Amino acid sequence: MTTFSGWNYANHEQSLLNLAADDLSLVTDLYQLTMAACYVGEGIEQRRASFELFTRRLPEGFGYLIAMGLTQALEYLEKLRFTPAQVEALKQTGIFAHAPERFWQLLLEARFTGDVYAVSEGTAVFANEPILRIEAPLWQAQLVETYLLNTINYQTLIATRAARMRDVAGESATLLEFGTRRAFSPQGAVWAARAALAGGFDATSNVFAALQLGMQPSGTMAHALVMALAATEGSEDQAFAAFHRYFPGASLLIDTYDTVAAAARLAEKVNSGELDLAGVRLDSGDLVELSHLVRSHLPGVPIFASGDLDEWEIARLKAAGAEIDGYGLGTKLVTGTPVNGVYKLVEIDDIPVMKQSSGKVTFPGRKQIFRTVVNGKVTADRLGLMDETPENGQPLLEIFMKAGKCIKPQENIGEIRQRTSATVASLPEEVRRIAKPITLHVEISNPLEELIWRTKNRELVTG
Amino acid sequence: MTTFSGWNYANHEQSLLNLAADDLSLVTDLYQLTMAACYVGEGIEQRRASFELFTRRLPEGFGYLIAMGLTQALEYLEKLRFTPAQVEALKQTGIFAHAPERFWQLLLEARFTGDVYAVSEGTAVFANEPILRIEAPLWQAQLVETYLLNTINYQTLIATRAARMRDVAGESATLLEFGTRRAFSPQGAVWAARAALAGGFDATSNVFAALQLGMQPSGTMAHALVMALAATEGSEDQAFAAFHRYFPGASLLIDTYDTVAAAARLAEKVNSGELDLAGVRLDSGDLVELSHLVRSHLPGVPIFASGDLDEWEIARLKAAGAEIDGYGLGTKLVTGTPVNGVYKLVEIDDIPVMKQSSGKVTFPGRKQIFRTVVNGKVTADRLGLMDETPENGQPLLEIFMKAGKCIKPQENIGEIRQRTSATVASLPEEVRRIAKPITLHVEISNPLEELIWRTKNRELVTG
Repeated sequence: MTTFSGWNYANHEQSLLNLAADDLSLVTDLYQLTMAACYVGEGIEQRRASFELFTRRLPEGFGYLIAMGLTQALEYLEKLRFTPAQVEALKQTGIFAHAPERFWQLLLEARFTGDVYAVSEGTAVFANEPILRIEAPLWQAQLVETYLLNTINYQTLIATRAARMRDVAGESATLLEFGTRRAFSPQGAVWAARAALAGGFDATSNVFAALQLGMQPSGTMAHALVMALAATEGSEDQAFAAFHRYFPGASLLIDTYDTVAAAARLAEKVNSGELDLAGVRLDSGDLVELSHLVRSHLPGVPIFASGDLDEWEIARLKAAGAEIDGYGLGTKLVTGTPVNGVYKLVEIDDIPVMKQSSGKVTFPGRKQIFRTVVNGKVTADRLGLMDETPENGQPLLEIFMKAGKCIKPQENIGEIRQRTSATVASLPEEVRRIAKPITLHVEISNPLEELIWRTKNRELVTG
Repeated sequence: MTTFSGWNYANHEQSLLNLAADDLSLVTDLYQLTMAACYVGEGIEQRRASFELFTRRLPEGFGYLIAMGLTQALEYLEKLRFTPAQVEALKQTGIFAHAPERFWQLLLEARFTGDVYAVSEGTAVFANEPILRIEAPLWQAQLVETYLLNTINYQTLIATRAARMRDVAGESATLLEFGTRRAFSPQGAVWAARAALAGGFDATSNVFAALQLGMQPSGTMAHALVMALAATEGSEDQAFAAFHRYFPGASLLIDTYDTVAAAARLAEKVNSGELDLAGVRLDSGDLVELSHLVRSHLPGVPIFASGDLDEWEIARLKAAGAEIDGYGLGTKLVTGTPVNGVYKLVEIDDIPVMKQSSGKVTFPGRKQIFRTVVNGKVTADRLGLMDETPENGQPLLEIFMKAGKCIKPQENIGEIRQRTSATVASLPEEVRRIAKPITLHVEISNPLEELIWRTKNRELVTG
């Protein structure tokens, strides 16, 4: 390990408890900073560069993606700053010993001054379609790559999973996000909650995320409460009674000891009018069988299920006729196969460029997605150039930030959730289904085809 | 969706850019707060409770786990507070309308006053072995569940993956953490970097994480630099020359156009003494074949490989004789199958308790792990009770926090990394290997067996 002595940026060793907004400029890969310094040295740091963020292929088993994370991306760009302490810390690493002195001044004065084009959050996108494009001075556009990918990759994954779960569960089911304990960091948990709500969920148990979004957090109770009250007060029923006294609107968790026996005892109280029960939750066992038994005892009471569920398991439970009104989704919603977005230079100083590495080719030029919708259904997407005159198709990329300033009002989660719902409804059945979906074929426009051919030939000559 | 009007905790809508240290008390599941309020109502909130954090089973294909995340867990506990604004926001949700008024005072005065027992970071643990135990007033021990699980689940996953990669790659290989763009949130990226370093990596590209840990960040260059300089200055070679001028210690990325041709051109400069090349990176193509071709051109130059690598791929490359000196690990290190730790009540007011739900049984009582090591190799782990007199075996759980105060000095990453290395070296080959590992059989001590039997029978009577 390469350590270096004496300097610690925040003057407290190893504290990684949380990140301040100021810290985010350094949440980047070192090479973004070294490349920026190189651009300064070569005098090309102010050249106008366009980078596009897209996925080369969808994660295995996905027919579409729901774009998400733009709100945080824009806020990051607006707030991007380097403090004198951060610049000093970078100098002290020694890594920049041969870098041009002017680089430091550039960092100290750093503001993001570029334009951002993007598809709106909640829009379905496919492989090779740009979710976002940055047009900015080269060094700025380079520097922000890591954060933009981080934000959009993760929120897009969660929104897509949430949209699939909503699609499978149906509009009438209640979908609750319960993933905070399994999410990859507290901030990951908060973003998962946001993206799940925007993707179609009804509520989250994450208190911070819910309050920040102006929503009520949601939750039931844990086995610990039943065990603690049963141990100190005498029985599971006393635990139920106590919790219901303070939270009459909450569901009761009935599987700590014997699920069916607990349901039968609760039914006596419901039938005698002693108890107005808002719901019960099952977290273990055979959910199909148990839900039927519980329903037979408690016919009017909503049944919630949890425990390692995902869109596949929801589909299986529904197909097996389980009597479930709502699902708590955690681990399998907030973790899993990542969305592997990439961020690639497509144009510099009006010169279109493309990467030609084996298996990782990128399309050159500033692009636009043209979507054709007939009778409410998407029939075709065409990937073309930004300045094409579209004979048909609705352009999906819009400008969100001009010269570093947001020019669209921020949407609330309800608006994004509606867009997600509408976009999923517009997809062909084979794209939308979770069993072996067939993703939409994205056509390449003639002008883009010609540009690819010209760029390839030019780069073969000069490469 | 249940929204409620008027109140927004932080007075800025939807800003989820980052979490302040103060925010973390609300990064919890709602039910932790409602259960705490219920405990207050029942007058049992100050009862002494013990909760243990453990996994029921290891993730598929894992033979062991490397415990990680305790440092952040302890810092969280020491700093736990609720601000008046947070308490007000909770009141305004309306959820607590029937909760006892005294709950709010408890929150406003909240401090964590309990004890924490844990295994040291970097220690190998197995299924059902407690990684951490909280002994605290019931309401506090309940409240902190979500954060503790989040922290320890994720960092333990990453440390374990890193330890496996180090074990497969060998001590002489350079392992670099490059996952920030694919991690699940910026904070997830920073924690992944920490856990990877503590698990055996040499460096991270995450600038913030490296600086906070007092280390040099690491990195090479991206295709964008080659493309930008090739487009504006004329060729890939000019891009190499420019970057090397400012960062003579950095490796050059040589696969943007034709990898072998680039290596051959660089070799001319190396052989003529014009260029002192620190390394090259390959990010695409057949790494076995390319590394041989590049080595033949550049015999003395370290070769780094990247591009969706993991411990399996490192093993495959080594078996195929690839000429690779270092690996950049990203996506497959920082995402993937989660560690599903749980946090369960095991004792309250000196009464041992156990959950008996189908398939999710927990062992009662405050436990200790006794590890037997013979000739430097772990031969057995025994799970017993904390107050057992061990005939043999070294107890692994130690006290880290007493009455809310840390009583051990914080370790630096280098120390934790050494413990990881030693613990992996002590594991039997079948536990350690990545192909179909056989995890260690954890014995149950006689006193624990008896306690399980007694608790089951008592709970059957009173349940």
